[in-house]
Amino acid sequence: MKIARVTGTVTASVKAAPLTGHKLLVTDVEDGAGNVLEPAVVAADTCGAGVGDLVMLVTGSAARLPAAVAGVPIDAAIVAVVDHVDIAGGPAKRTPTRRRNG
Amino acid sequence: MKIARVTGTVTASVKAAPLTGHKLLVTDVEDGAGNVLEPAVVAADTCGAGVGDLVMLVTGSAARLPAAVAGVPIDAAIVAVVDHVDIAGGPAKRTPTRRRNG
Amino acid sequence: MKIARVTGTVTASVKAAPLTGHKLLVTDVEDGAGNVLEPAVVAADTCGAGVGDLVMLVTGSAARLPAAVAGVPIDAAIVAVVDHVDIAGGPAKRTPTRRRNG
Amino acid sequence: MKIARVTGTVTASVKAAPLTGHKLLVTDVEDGAGNVLEPAVVAADTCGAGVGDLVMLVTGSAARLPAAVAGVPIDAAIVAVVDHVDIAGGPAKRTPTRRRNG
Amino acid sequence: MKIARVTGTVTASVKAAPLTGHKLLVTDVEDGAGNVLEPAVVAADTCGAGVGDLVMLVTGSAARLPAAVAGVPIDAAIVAVVDHVDIAGGPAKRTPTRRRNG
Repeated sequence: MKIARVTGTVTASVKAAPLTGHKLLVTDVEDGAGNVLEPAVVAADTCGAGVGDLVMLVTGSAARLPAAVAGVPIDAAIVAVVDHVDIAGGPAKRTPTRRRNG
Repeated sequence: MKIARVTGTVTASVKAAPLTGHKLLVTDVEDGAGNVLEPAVVAADTCGAGVGDLVMLVTGSAARLPAAVAGVPIDAAIVAVVDHVDIAGGPAKRTPTRRRNG
Repeated sequence: MKIARVTGTVTASVKAAPLTGHKLLVTDVEDGAGNVLEPAVVAADTCGAGVGDLVMLVTGSAARLPAAVAGVPIDAAIVAVVDHVDIAGGPAKRTPTRRRNG
Repeated sequence: MKIARVTGTVTASVKAAPLTGHKLLVTDVEDGAGNVLEPAVVAADTCGAGVGDLVMLVTGSAARLPAAVAGVPIDAAIVAVVDHVDIAGGPAKRTPTRRRNG
Repeated sequence: MKIARVTGTVTASVKAAPLTGHKLLVTDVEDGAGNVLEPAVVAADTCGAGVGDLVMLVTGSAARLPAAVAGVPIDAAIVAVVDHVDIAGGPAKRTPTRRRNG
């Protein structure tokens, strides 16, 4: 899985029907210190995540395992909103800015 | 999934039979600001997309979930024509040039 | 899928039995203008492709969808011999050198 | 599979239910000599690994084959704690620092 | 698939049970001329390969198709020991050093 920051949203009126109703969030995959490793991965949200949240992405067929997105043509999903990324020897526990507590 | 710009088409008379009748579009994967991240990803169209459109690509086994391409030997499909890419703190809503409204 | 140029062949007498009888071609993945993006991807041929041909590769589980390679331990297959790659605003239609017409 | 060093942990209270109870470890994929190839791959632990351990990661659908994580939305799992990485012509057997023997 | 050189071995006493008895070889993915493209890919051997051999790797779910590794949590397997890599216009047939003939 990857740690990623939600940076925005994608909207599309013309799309595969099963995508309807699913929030599509643009994310930047990051390392433990917040450096961007891979920009602009679009993921279906399954956790109520929002812009600014640090999340955990799953990709491939696993993205369709949460019941809410079963059978939906997606290859990436947000399956957790991260509380802590704790890297040994790294900066103190990196608690991501959380939109809710903001 | 990825945001991508449709840049062209691929045609082939000698091909796996199930590919017959499917539009194969060449796309460049982009970030939220339009920078090319990965050029020349060929995807089967399932949304009526065309050259110049900003689309959403799905890859892997998910590409074969839309009914129209079930069982077709593809690993990438266009599953949405993007209306807006809205990146927090980025340039104003990036509304992709749309061939239809052009 | 990817556009790729067939550059050579791989032969192996010691191999998984189901690979027997399948032509294994070395390809270089290219962009629409012929620049190499990823060298040396080995793919099973399902279209009668040969060295010098411009082909379309499919990877992952899709590579085993053509009947001829069902169940064969491959992760990449040639599923089309490309006639044209037509990139909007690019050089005139890029008709790949075709071994047959050569 | 990949050789990786466990560098930290990820915790999340808001997450897909099946992730509950699974230890999510942050790892850096390394080469045989310990150089980092890909940072910050999050993997579900199935072997009792901990920070500092050198482990073997499996990714994709294989990550969900161990019984403990069957059906869990993960795309990477730790399936071994490495005793030795023995590279011919490389430095003497590289026995990873093991948290347990430390 | 990829062409790869076997460079070493990985041993682990703590591991997912199905891995027991399978030889885990460290390989460097190469291009047709022997340049390393991706170091340190660990693969399960299904062909009796050994250090120094040039092999063909398959990755993803295909890695588990050989009967010997069915259901084993692996994402890469050696499915051939390469006799020849023949690149058109490249150096004469590149016959890999073979441990057996050495």
